[in-house]
Amino acid sequence: MQVNGYGALSKTAPIAPIGFERREVGADDILVDILYCGVCHSDIHMARSEWGPSVYPIVPGHEIVGRVSAIGNNVTKFKVGDLAGVAVFVDSCRTCPSCQSGMEQYCDEGMTPTYNGFYRDGVTPTFGGYSSKYVIDEKYALHIPFTDQLEAVAPLLCAGITTYSPLRFAGVGKGHKVAVLGLGGLGHMAVKFAASFGAEVTMLSTSPSKEADARRLGAQHFVLTTDEAQMKPLKNHFDFILNTVSAVHDLNSFLDLLKLEGKMLLVGIPPEDHSVDAEKLISKRRSIVGSMIGGIQETQEMLDYCAEHNIVSDVEVIAMKDINEAYDRILKSDVKYRFVIDMKTL
Amino acid sequence: MQVNGYGALSKTAPIAPIGFERREVGADDILVDILYCGVCHSDIHMARSEWGPSVYPIVPGHEIVGRVSAIGNNVTKFKVGDLAGVAVFVDSCRTCPSCQSGMEQYCDEGMTPTYNGFYRDGVTPTFGGYSSKYVIDEKYALHIPFTDQLEAVAPLLCAGITTYSPLRFAGVGKGHKVAVLGLGGLGHMAVKFAASFGAEVTMLSTSPSKEADARRLGAQHFVLTTDEAQMKPLKNHFDFILNTVSAVHDLNSFLDLLKLEGKMLLVGIPPEDHSVDAEKLISKRRSIVGSMIGGIQETQEMLDYCAEHNIVSDVEVIAMKDINEAYDRILKSDVKYRFVIDMKTL
Repeated sequence: MQVNGYGALSKTAPIAPIGFERREVGADDILVDILYCGVCHSDIHMARSEWGPSVYPIVPGHEIVGRVSAIGNNVTKFKVGDLAGVAVFVDSCRTCPSCQSGMEQYCDEGMTPTYNGFYRDGVTPTFGGYSSKYVIDEKYALHIPFTDQLEAVAPLLCAGITTYSPLRFAGVGKGHKVAVLGLGGLGHMAVKFAASFGAEVTMLSTSPSKEADARRLGAQHFVLTTDEAQMKPLKNHFDFILNTVSAVHDLNSFLDLLKLEGKMLLVGIPPEDHSVDAEKLISKRRSIVGSMIGGIQETQEMLDYCAEHNIVSDVEVIAMKDINEAYDRILKSDVKYRFVIDMKTL
Repeated sequence: MQVNGYGALSKTAPIAPIGFERREVGADDILVDILYCGVCHSDIHMARSEWGPSVYPIVPGHEIVGRVSAIGNNVTKFKVGDLAGVAVFVDSCRTCPSCQSGMEQYCDEGMTPTYNGFYRDGVTPTFGGYSSKYVIDEKYALHIPFTDQLEAVAPLLCAGITTYSPLRFAGVGKGHKVAVLGLGGLGHMAVKFAASFGAEVTMLSTSPSKEADARRLGAQHFVLTTDEAQMKPLKNHFDFILNTVSAVHDLNSFLDLLKLEGKMLLVGIPPEDHSVDAEKLISKRRSIVGSMIGGIQETQEMLDYCAEHNIVSDVEVIAMKDINEAYDRILKSDVKYRFVIDMKTL
């Protein structure tokens, strides 16, 4: 089917109106009429081929909430009229140990990204949520257990699960001291989740202006990382640091803040390798643990948890035509904390 | 008391005969007449101030096995005539959470090193096992549950516990695929322990000449890391890599070999920071975990395990006067796999 959207024709082109072809609704598919799509920093990286060459034309967007408008014959999870979510991937090999254990994001053959990749046939490109409709196998779609605030639900599908999953994997809960490094789209969700799980949360930031917000989001402490006097007493202090920063930064000074067997949970990928002093890990049996989004099952669990605990993202809703300005503002960290496109404006 | 030993007067001086003063045997102390002392690579680093300025004169040696020749009034763990071991530290603050939980090596105030440091008073220097006698608080001394091969037991006190502890902490056992990176003093013990714990062990090495030895020590597989054809099929393969290398090396290529949630156990401290590609960790929820020797309780557990399973180090016994030549050979990796000084030759 022919679909309207916004995309880029090359790495230097702006995001602009584009028409493209999606597959027809197959037996296992649902058709989602997109209501909202979050704007993730990775949209910018991929639109501009900053993570290796992208597939052009590219239609970004992987934080999608919409309403089911058609279903295939085999579909049982959804009916027409249901809300549905599409997150960061839309298929995987389904047979490797990761897929078999519900961790499709770690698929040995590579997950099928929601955009900027190819379906399992290796030749049909995927196009993202800056568009009117998405066709997705129901197995890879999410139920949206909300009735309103849908614009604020959309970012849960990437920013939400990316921070929920490592906190759960690490077993964060009551009695834990958790630091969140970086207050952006991921960081603001990390604070909400860590606080909701019962941890004592500290925001580590370079911007004094973020203190009030950090506290409002659930942080009990705010530490200016550039202030040696505030940092020094925190040596050997935290059980976990959830590091959401994807800019180049010095990991070693933060490793010092972890107590015995403390873990740095890493979800950002800076453009350069981290420099890691082995002694910082060895001297306190500390770890660095990577984590990437979450599987379908865990993403659903996260959405259900959010509905139950009334956790959503802090968003600024924009019109589709304002996407390039939104990109500029994201690059200046001028967003609290996620832009979400209202697809009515397409 | 006056004690004879071998030590260095400066970072450029050779190891040579030296006399020095130890404290008298206190109420909680035992006096150990040293029989054997292993030669650890860190002896060289510290004798030469390669890990920051050392305390001179320096008397190296922290793999000490000897016989108790005197005890203080309060001593209950040892009697005269017992074998005793002294490992990498001889005291700690005793009150911090690490000390309280039997992990004195991670003492928040810093452990008291067996040599090249100061006792808790901060002014009395510690001198190591290249000497005739050691005075140590019984709480920090080990029982040696062996009757012979004592020369091969000595290296267990550093090389042994340094590899035993991370394998235990990681829960290595039957069904696990474990790679050992580097076949030296630490690596050869790592292979023995991992195989003994039931794991399927692969030696990763740059030296084809080490294959026969690796297999003899317990490795089921040997992989030449410089051979792309051998390395490629090992992507996403191992549950654990015990990385014993303390020379500069590329961590990223080995991270690729870890399967989902695989862990790189790091025990070496190279002279430069590691370069770590966050994507390698994030894409498979992999971790890097540091580990440093072990606590007194775990060191005793390790010694008891070794006695039960007849695990000792592969050693070459040398005379005290040949120590400088031994250092030269260690630097050329010309030792299988640990030099041990016979203190009768002092």
